[in-house]
Amino acid sequence: MSSALTGLLRHPIVQAPMAGGVSVPRLAAAVSEAGGLGFLAGGYKTADGMYREIKQMRGLTSRPFGVNLFMPQPEQSGAGAGSTTAAGAAPFDAGAVEVYAHQLAGEAAWYRTELGDPDSGRDDGYDAKLAVLLDDPVAAVSFHFGVPSPEVLASLRRAGTFTLVTATTVEEALAVERAGADAVIVQGIEAGGHQGTHRDVPDNDGSGIGLLSLIALVREAVGLPLVAAGGIMRGSQIAAALAAGASAVQLGTAFVPTPESGAAAAHKEALTDPLFVGTRLTRAFTGRPARGLVNRFLREHGRYAPAAYPEVHHLTAPLRKAAAAAGDAQGMALWAGQGHRMARDMPAGELVEVLAAEAGAVWAASAADAEGGAGR
Amino acid sequence: MSSALTGLLRHPIVQAPMAGGVSVPRLAAAVSEAGGLGFLAGGYKTADGMYREIKQMRGLTSRPFGVNLFMPQPEQSGAGAGSTTAAGAAPFDAGAVEVYAHQLAGEAAWYRTELGDPDSGRDDGYDAKLAVLLDDPVAAVSFHFGVPSPEVLASLRRAGTFTLVTATTVEEALAVERAGADAVIVQGIEAGGHQGTHRDVPDNDGSGIGLLSLIALVREAVGLPLVAAGGIMRGSQIAAALAAGASAVQLGTAFVPTPESGAAAAHKEALTDPLFVGTRLTRAFTGRPARGLVNRFLREHGRYAPAAYPEVHHLTAPLRKAAAAAGDAQGMALWAGQGHRMARDMPAGELVEVLAAEAGAVWAASAADAEGGAGR
Repeated sequence: MSSALTGLLRHPIVQAPMAGGVSVPRLAAAVSEAGGLGFLAGGYKTADGMYREIKQMRGLTSRPFGVNLFMPQPEQSGAGAGSTTAAGAAPFDAGAVEVYAHQLAGEAAWYRTELGDPDSGRDDGYDAKLAVLLDDPVAAVSFHFGVPSPEVLASLRRAGTFTLVTATTVEEALAVERAGADAVIVQGIEAGGHQGTHRDVPDNDGSGIGLLSLIALVREAVGLPLVAAGGIMRGSQIAAALAAGASAVQLGTAFVPTPESGAAAAHKEALTDPLFVGTRLTRAFTGRPARGLVNRFLREHGRYAPAAYPEVHHLTAPLRKAAAAAGDAQGMALWAGQGHRMARDMPAGELVEVLAAEAGAVWAASAADAEGGAGR
Repeated sequence: MSSALTGLLRHPIVQAPMAGGVSVPRLAAAVSEAGGLGFLAGGYKTADGMYREIKQMRGLTSRPFGVNLFMPQPEQSGAGAGSTTAAGAAPFDAGAVEVYAHQLAGEAAWYRTELGDPDSGRDDGYDAKLAVLLDDPVAAVSFHFGVPSPEVLASLRRAGTFTLVTATTVEEALAVERAGADAVIVQGIEAGGHQGTHRDVPDNDGSGIGLLSLIALVREAVGLPLVAAGGIMRGSQIAAALAAGASAVQLGTAFVPTPESGAAAAHKEALTDPLFVGTRLTRAFTGRPARGLVNRFLREHGRYAPAAYPEVHHLTAPLRKAAAAAGDAQGMALWAGQGHRMARDMPAGELVEVLAAEAGAVWAASAADAEGGAGR
């Protein structure tokens, strides 16, 4: 492991930042205390709200932790369907958002709520959050949905902060390296929640790369340490990711069912409920591809959802909140990676220890086999 | 590694059977001679043709080798679009095949050839091939596109043959175990060529599982040894797959660019040609989802191809043959896994040695790290 990463972790385990209430300070602190790297989710919060959580964290642990930010989404051309912005990004179609809102009217009525305002804001308070993080630095900051400017990354580095940026392809990993980040989070299609592709291009739907291939491809293309993310639930998979060239792994779904996680009970239970037969990438809840358990909302609306993030996120937020309040898993965004069935309900710190022990056992067994030159 | 597998391999490396001319005896023999397990592709051949290749193999090597068979495709109901056969398989629509044939008329004219007869046969001579393999047994037989009956598997076992069957989900792996096979080939979505799903169900498109998740999921569900397939091009990935719970790996694309492979030159070159930006799963060439480099044929026809295998395979065969004869990569099925850019042109036996050494180096490095409890 690179020395900078080594200073942040005793075990090569990063807890994925999960916005929307799952990544609460209690969870991140438990992970950091156990020797992993806990992360707060700065996304969807105000800068003040993010700062409050950072101060809570410092009250819970003196160990390193990270904060995740969502990149502001590029200005859309607003030129209507059929036009293409630079670099082939999704043409923004305000009409499509309106049509989708009409389609969701039934959901609003059902849950006795109003749809949210799609124009509630596109930059997620990025500048104000950066100002906080430069003024009162944390150990690590990660970025999702794009690459920060070289100036931002350099400022964070000067402040003593370790920076990580998500990449889903070799080209994106090269962009992360060029911009000057300290590490790349290589995210395979197995991952739960939002794919961190730098631009959402619907023509690319279905082209996502599996994690074991992506780690190897990126390992040969960039020199930065890699943090592998996507479907990792067992220490054996951690050992695997490290064997393939990663320095650490990032786990999201694995931490959702822990007692410290802020996920709704219906979400935690759904992960291992045989009623939910699998996951899909969908724009239904937020307008950007994200992987969740297939439920009624995803099945009914997925194919109609426009590529319009965060407009669709704002639109559906009250619906998802109402469904969660009602304990109705069929109307919630049940973010989950492809390994969701392997979810374990145990305290987060204990999970970190168990995962590290599982990974260690694999290394020990392979060291014994290594002479024979054959697999186990 | 299970003792039965150990007897077949010195290195945990299986060369994937690649029908259509790639898996020739020279390739399989080179792999077996180097201590891997070479495979002949019985698919698309007559029983006599398959037997001729087996005898050729025996002249080239005395080491163990395998033969792969395609499962016969279930009888279709022929009840037209909208009907569903048992278990939700794709409704067979003879009209859709006819429409697709009309669409391909331009291709036939372009390549100055005729389309093939879609009704050239659905069972690939399975019974005759099994008779050969029971009469003159080989060391291993693998099956793709479904599960053989318990009786067939038992007969092969009595003949001293090791049996393997492809699975792409936990449920399919359980079916393989129940039927009595000796090993499961767990195939992730990264794999080049045909996905070996037991039934082709278009509603399931996009639900494929990444290899690192699939190995872990299947490892916990079945007791059989696992052979992991999909995107594996480096020894580091072999070490990874074994760490995650596989006993061996199966590599297809990695062997395509070797001098011994029977692949067309245009196919070998395309693997690392930057003109080809990636791969997709498509029914365009055969009517069943298969992963290949995105080219003109895939882009133009992929979205219209019906779920009708092997009808579409027979239909397009003369087109693909003509394109290959003309060295026209844009009209060929350029089967390739997601790791295709890591392709290496070296003799197949040398590739086996290199892969084994790369895997061994990972184990050695991790054994050194293991005490620290942290990743590399």
